[in-house]
Amino acid sequence: MTHLAPLDAQAQPPTPREAEILDAVRHVFAEKGFDGASMQELARAAGMSVGNFYRYFPSKAAMVEELIRHDLKDVEAHFARVASAPDPLATLRIALAERVRNYAEMCTDAPLRAEITAAALRKPELAIVVGRVEREITTYLVRAFGTATGLDFDTAWQRFAAHARLIVLLVKACTTRLRIGDVDGEALTVLILRQIDSLLDEVAAARPETSRT
Amino acid sequence: MTHLAPLDAQAQPPTPREAEILDAVRHVFAEKGFDGASMQELARAAGMSVGNFYRYFPSKAAMVEELIRHDLKDVEAHFARVASAPDPLATLRIALAERVRNYAEMCTDAPLRAEITAAALRKPELAIVVGRVEREITTYLVRAFGTATGLDFDTAWQRFAAHARLIVLLVKACTTRLRIGDVDGEALTVLILRQIDSLLDEVAAARPETSRT
Repeated sequence: MTHLAPLDAQAQPPTPREAEILDAVRHVFAEKGFDGASMQELARAAGMSVGNFYRYFPSKAAMVEELIRHDLKDVEAHFARVASAPDPLATLRIALAERVRNYAEMCTDAPLRAEITAAALRKPELAIVVGRVEREITTYLVRAFGTATGLDFDTAWQRFAAHARLIVLLVKACTTRLRIGDVDGEALTVLILRQIDSLLDEVAAARPETSRT
Repeated sequence: MTHLAPLDAQAQPPTPREAEILDAVRHVFAEKGFDGASMQELARAAGMSVGNFYRYFPSKAAMVEELIRHDLKDVEAHFARVASAPDPLATLRIALAERVRNYAEMCTDAPLRAEITAAALRKPELAIVVGRVEREITTYLVRAFGTATGLDFDTAWQRFAAHARLIVLLVKACTTRLRIGDVDGEALTVLILRQIDSLLDEVAAARPETSRT
């Protein structure tokens, strides 16, 4: 995790506690919000002095980038499996359905994600970080679309980048929706999965006739 | 605006500056975040002493409820027009398209909305407030669906509450999406409007054969 190397890495060897530090930071942000969390609190939670902490994270935006990049590794691994599957779109359908269902049931990281989105809309430096990561996720999806349809990346991007973005929005929407009284959560989940399916159907329709199943 | 009456309304007549106070509060929340904004700052922005301010807003959650209820009045007026239109679903389609297009272009209240969503996921007292308001919006939509299809409210709710919720989610998703590099915003907007249309088509299909246009 090169991002977490201290700024003067020559002088001090990298710490082995990165995952622990990120967990502590994640917890404080989720509980206090981006603006409510002070550098003092964040450093204390990570078990570090404020001075030392600043050497790892020059700003709260840098911390957030590290947090979402950490999560992105899971996403990357998922997409690697999708791209190498015999039927990438079918594998993607299953993976997205799992993700929507897990979010709907657990939603443990929903507060942090919502907090990052909100802070990004207020703070341009954070919007750049979040935009960069969202761009990467869109790229993974479009690459999978390209593999599945036989379109080259640029053509796939031109035709289906918006499809990829909307799929990400729908999955994210599941994480932030509040549970309200008597609306049947299961009916909403089914509807969202149906919307995702119809977007993937449109992508699949770009496959040459002979290779369609 | 009865919510804004001071707690001991007998002792003091209601202030005529409510809209001004709400604007000031909205601005501070949008800039500093829910947790970053202190009661002192909020009171100062509203031009009131902290003591007096507490009499109007016993908590930040109470302020947020007042803010979203204020916005809800616009929504209510929109839905009243939809319900009394000759073709409620067609009118709703146009109104939602306008809303999505306006959000995509202006997004001025996106930071505040995202902030409220994020804070609600962290704070149960705020989740109750936001859930109550979202429930009301869902009810307006389902009522419009009932009027359009001739279904009674309970049947319309059972069949289409999830449709209503997803439409709200899609419109909200437009407010929070970040603009990223080369993804064509217009293509995404078109896709979202198409999704909303397909949900409304499903509602329209519940109309008795004879009354379909």
